[in-house]
Amino acid sequence: MLRPAQRVVRRVGDELHLPGLASAHSHAFQRGLRGLTQRRSPAGMGDFWSWRGLMYHLAEQLSPEDVFRLSRFAFAELALSGVTAVGEFHYLHHQADGTPYADRLELADAVVRAARDVGLRITLLRVLYARAGAGRAPGGAQRRFSDLRVEDGLADVEALAARYAQDPCVAVGVAPHSVRAVPRAWLGEAARFASARALPLHAHVSEQRAELEECRAEHGMTPVRLLSEEGALSARFVAVHATHLEAGEAELMGGAHAFACICRTTERDLGDGLANVASMADCGVRICLGVDSHASSCPFEEARAVELDERTRAEGRVVAAEASALLRAATADGYAALGLDGREAEDEIVLDAHDPALAGAQPDTLDESVVFGAGARAVREVKVAGRDVVHEGQLVLDYQGAREAFEACLKKLLAR
Amino acid sequence: MLRPAQRVVRRVGDELHLPGLASAHSHAFQRGLRGLTQRRSPAGMGDFWSWRGLMYHLAEQLSPEDVFRLSRFAFAELALSGVTAVGEFHYLHHQADGTPYADRLELADAVVRAARDVGLRITLLRVLYARAGAGRAPGGAQRRFSDLRVEDGLADVEALAARYAQDPCVAVGVAPHSVRAVPRAWLGEAARFASARALPLHAHVSEQRAELEECRAEHGMTPVRLLSEEGALSARFVAVHATHLEAGEAELMGGAHAFACICRTTERDLGDGLANVASMADCGVRICLGVDSHASSCPFEEARAVELDERTRAEGRVVAAEASALLRAATADGYAALGLDGREAEDEIVLDAHDPALAGAQPDTLDESVVFGAGARAVREVKVAGRDVVHEGQLVLDYQGAREAFEACLKKLLAR
Repeated sequence: MLRPAQRVVRRVGDELHLPGLASAHSHAFQRGLRGLTQRRSPAGMGDFWSWRGLMYHLAEQLSPEDVFRLSRFAFAELALSGVTAVGEFHYLHHQADGTPYADRLELADAVVRAARDVGLRITLLRVLYARAGAGRAPGGAQRRFSDLRVEDGLADVEALAARYAQDPCVAVGVAPHSVRAVPRAWLGEAARFASARALPLHAHVSEQRAELEECRAEHGMTPVRLLSEEGALSARFVAVHATHLEAGEAELMGGAHAFACICRTTERDLGDGLANVASMADCGVRICLGVDSHASSCPFEEARAVELDERTRAEGRVVAAEASALLRAATADGYAALGLDGREAEDEIVLDAHDPALAGAQPDTLDESVVFGAGARAVREVKVAGRDVVHEGQLVLDYQGAREAFEACLKKLLAR
Repeated sequence: MLRPAQRVVRRVGDELHLPGLASAHSHAFQRGLRGLTQRRSPAGMGDFWSWRGLMYHLAEQLSPEDVFRLSRFAFAELALSGVTAVGEFHYLHHQADGTPYADRLELADAVVRAARDVGLRITLLRVLYARAGAGRAPGGAQRRFSDLRVEDGLADVEALAARYAQDPCVAVGVAPHSVRAVPRAWLGEAARFASARALPLHAHVSEQRAELEECRAEHGMTPVRLLSEEGALSARFVAVHATHLEAGEAELMGGAHAFACICRTTERDLGDGLANVASMADCGVRICLGVDSHASSCPFEEARAVELDERTRAEGRVVAAEASALLRAATADGYAALGLDGREAEDEIVLDAHDPALAGAQPDTLDESVVFGAGARAVREVKVAGRDVVHEGQLVLDYQGAREAFEACLKKLLAR
């Protein structure tokens, strides 16, 4: 079980105040897929891999302006749901045939601008991608994700950091996509690079059982063991999902004070299975939370899902975490996982204590009322670094304009 | 898997229209407990039974006015979340020492008035309760639930039906609490009574494993088998939860065209475990949904939870039901489970298609967008039998007055 935490929510008159909330793992453009991949396919039951096919189909077509419009709307929805900081796991780098844009940072820039237009903090986690799998060259949409040499990707991280050095709300990190998508040597290179610059290092870890099997076949060991041998595990390392850990893997992560980023609303949606958060926490693994595919954008539904799904498995109550520990995961630990240690105190969420979902909240159980009861409707004010992002429940940025641009973009893409 | 359904959501300009949504299993006064039972107890991990202790503590103290105020607010929240019809599984009947009120229907009346003040349809499912378990007399709060003779409870059902005969939005049903809480003979009496009057017959079934073991010890058979032998199974029977069914039980229910009422947000909260909806559906069991303890009141989170939790177990996608089938469960089948066959067409929910959670919904996947994306924020209009219940996102009834009365009542109760 997650260790107990300080209380997080403060009541001020008719308002409930929280520090900034981080969504530490996002693929913003996937907001365009919401609702589109929920029907049974003619071939039978859908799964993660059929979903991925549709996602790739979208990813292949996106122009820089498309990326901007989809991302801006996704971030607008996050802000209206009470999120202040996002970790964008950004893998769309190049043109459709794999050729870099004249400005290699064109698409990363589109995503960062989208977050800054809305007013969110963003940590751009620049993804490293090399292959479809062991011995398999990238194909289709993956050509947009891939670099020939790890140095090219790492140089982009340097360039991004330099470009946004003056914006205190933009940070960068390094993200080898997964042990499947990069050769072993890249893991070590990425780890050394991140370590030298004290940058966050994120990777998808064991989201699907197939990945685990492939890793064992290629490397003769499990993904976390491989990451450990390559020096990737540290207090700046974030294992995204960590769904199907094998014996000893949680101990390795916990020993390094690493994070697991749990993305329950997406993991539920994709049928990933269920990470054992209680057991990871017992090993000292820290937990943060992520919206991932934007299947749902409510950070409260995301937080309660961590505990509720472990209750279903354990057939008990208060199994993985108390509410305060879930809020620590969403706030201080989420910020730390994005290299924004302590910055959550510069940001603020205000909820309406009179919202139907929160009415009756008692002074000594405010954290519980918020985690288990709140929804996006209760969000009144969102401030990032002193700037209003949401005021009186409305986005400060022109919401209808962002929505119309998003819907027009989607209509164009889906007509193809 | 649930059989395919007609599409439910219609787009009209910038609005998404749905027929009435039923929450077929509710204990309205439990709204007062939200957020209060989420902390680890000194004795260790909480469970269903420690939660029940707190619920009983509240139930012991309630005056008729308390029941009215707690229920009215619970129903107001449901209406604001898009619910039009509620099945209130009503077990608070008598004074604290078990003596009936001068008007035996005083508390049932308080609940019905609460629903009618808000504007919801209500089916008052009058609970029959006799004992703490096999050979154990009711104690504590259970004295308020219990009747000495089954005839007394059934006479109350008749009296309720007569009292509300002129209100087309009030219906009644019979609800033996569970095989634990009534002797075997009461099940048969209740079944015959309901059958003669074509009333809904609801019972908690196998929510907790302990109940199953007790039933086997007392009767030498499982709960659904016992209900079947007593003639309880029919197309008017609703098994609430049906979490831990044994081999053959789903077949018995399906053969009778009975319902299971799945209450995932409460079942998650209480650590009940996970019913096998896909397998029940394969046997012909119909599904409806219920808010139960009001741990959360969003009917969309309730509906998607049915499918999403089966995805977690199966590690696949589209396992228990497609979105349209989940909406049929929430609308037509929910109404049928409450004895309101076809009435969902007289009611209407209007969602804002421009809500951040719904923007981008495509014409051929509106049901998917609503089930997997919607939250209470999107609810704009709620109409019941031609009357406005929610207009432009606001309750027609004075919301702040209902909230203040609820909070004052809760403050008084918790001070004891």
